Amino acid sequence: MTVNETTKNEKRAIAKAITLIEEGGPQAISLLQTIYKRSGNSHLIGITGPPGVGKSTLIDALIVEIRKNNLKVGVLAVDPSSPFSGGAILGDRIRMQAHTLDSGVFIRSMANRGFAGGIALAVHDAIRVLEAYGYDIIIIETVGVGQSELAIAKLADTTILALMPGSGDDIQAIKSGIMEIGDIFVINKGDLPGANKAATNILQSLDLVQEKGPWTPPVLISTAQDGNGIKELWQALQEHFNHLKSSNELETRRKQRIKAELAELVAYKIRTSCLDSIEHLDLAKKLVDDVYQRKQDPHTAAQSLIKLLNN
Amino acid sequence: MTVNETTKNEKRAIAKAITLIEEGGPQAISLLQTIYKRSGNSHLIGITGPPGVGKSTLIDALIVEIRKNNLKVGVLAVDPSSPFSGGAILGDRIRMQAHTLDSGVFIRSMANRGFAGGIALAVHDAIRVLEAYGYDIIIIETVGVGQSELAIAKLADTTILALMPGSGDDIQAIKSGIMEIGDIFVINKGDLPGANKAATNILQSLDLVQEKGPWTPPVLISTAQDGNGIKELWQALQEHFNHLKSSNELETRRKQRIKAELAELVAYKIRTSCLDSIEHLDLAKKLVDDVYQRKQDPHTAAQSLIKLLNN
Repeated sequence: MTVNETTKNEKRAIAKAITLIEEGGPQAISLLQTIYKRSGNSHLIGITGPPGVGKSTLIDALIVEIRKNNLKVGVLAVDPSSPFSGGAILGDRIRMQAHTLDSGVFIRSMANRGFAGGIALAVHDAIRVLEAYGYDIIIIETVGVGQSELAIAKLADTTILALMPGSGDDIQAIKSGIMEIGDIFVINKGDLPGANKAATNILQSLDLVQEKGPWTPPVLISTAQDGNGIKELWQALQEHFNHLKSSNELETRRKQRIKAELAELVAYKIRTSCLDSIEHLDLAKKLVDDVYQRKQDPHTAAQSLIKLLNN
Repeated sequence: MTVNETTKNEKRAIAKAITLIEEGGPQAISLLQTIYKRSGNSHLIGITGPPGVGKSTLIDALIVEIRKNNLKVGVLAVDPSSPFSGGAILGDRIRMQAHTLDSGVFIRSMANRGFAGGIALAVHDAIRVLEAYGYDIIIIETVGVGQSELAIAKLADTTILALMPGSGDDIQAIKSGIMEIGDIFVINKGDLPGANKAATNILQSLDLVQEKGPWTPPVLISTAQDGNGIKELWQALQEHFNHLKSSNELETRRKQRIKAELAELVAYKIRTSCLDSIEHLDLAKKLVDDVYQRKQDPHTAAQSLIKLLNN
């Protein structure tokens, strides 16, 4: 088998594994049990921000930079949940897809719908597949910073918040209290007027919202389309990862993530067995009837259902 | 006390109750246990669709129509989860707010973030407060049709899917498979070119995606700004509600909703007690360490955690 064929087979295996994960079920779980020991050795980078700031172009440029260092890089792009904003984003991604010919690059879109357990659980597991295959850097791209996107941002070791000048996004971001999630801020499309102003706004508000710690989030200006500012971004990413490792913050963050994942997995399994008993257990069916007939309120009925499930 | 003062007090009580629900906790639950018997008698109307189709203007016009019939109407507007698309929508709502001087109208925004149990659970309960206060019609407005918006759409008895001509939204909606949720389709901004074409597209695709049942979803064209098509929309809403009642579909839908709510409530309670035991039980803490050290995978650990919680 040539090197090329090995690569092709590997990528096919990864794609198949992620599809399994998306579909869920016992096969996916047994796969994850097998590979879990080999996971946990990558730098997970989250990148989020409003549509139109050029996240895909940024990632495209980052891939070029990372590949110069001969590191393997995987990208998981989590598509927005609304079918009404999906078009443009997929279009942006075409440029990025050119990298898939490179043996050290794997790119995959995961749609933010249809996961009974929530997209975050599936992304957790997809990351592990890439880790097991020796991808050094894994970039998780999300659009927007809603509830589910925030959950995904929390999956990363380092989170980049990307904004652009003149859009008012900096003000929106500051107002909405999402500044805390950024380890690195990037004002992309830095050739547009107002880039320095946006950077200053963010720097000033960071003073207010983030606790002064050993890490001060840098605010970078980039023009990803021309590759400007990308070297600096890559350097900031490495510095942040080194900071996480030397300060023990990496262990803290990863344990925090495991806690949230375990609680989510338990909630998912219980929700499933709950729906199952409602269909099949007479006592559970009666609870639904009681709530419908206003004999019992849902909160009291949920408590009874928990007791029922424990027996 | 004058009638005016009674109304003011009532609205203040409702607002306070919904705030309690948003905050969660035992006080909210005991409130809901008290009012539950008085709930369940309203027509719940969900309205969803992409930003810019004029949902708020549609609701504004619908309120006028509903008030002509001397019915009380409540509106719960669920704000999008992303802080980057909230601005325009709140702006649109200013016009709607003029109705709040009317004693028979209550309007409230609920932000789609910060609910540990998900926004859908809080909306469920907010609806009950309005029902208990005798609101005949409750309109639930959501933006987009992502995972959480779909969950909210399922809270309604009747769901309106609002689209506009020439935006390609009709095509997006058809492709994305969200057509099934619409009981009534409205092409708003019907004075723009392409309204008839959009209506035809939807009618044709409905033939493909929806099972032929006793209810054929009407596709209406409206220009809410001028009040055109609103009388027809109100009539369609009443026809659909009558259909639900006479066909027993209302009971089926409402029981389905109770099932989903109970499962969600149970999952929420279990997630909370799971996070609690991870902080306080040594055996649960050890599970987190084991997963972190790759001695155990998360799926296996979640099973152990469930056993632990049952003891």
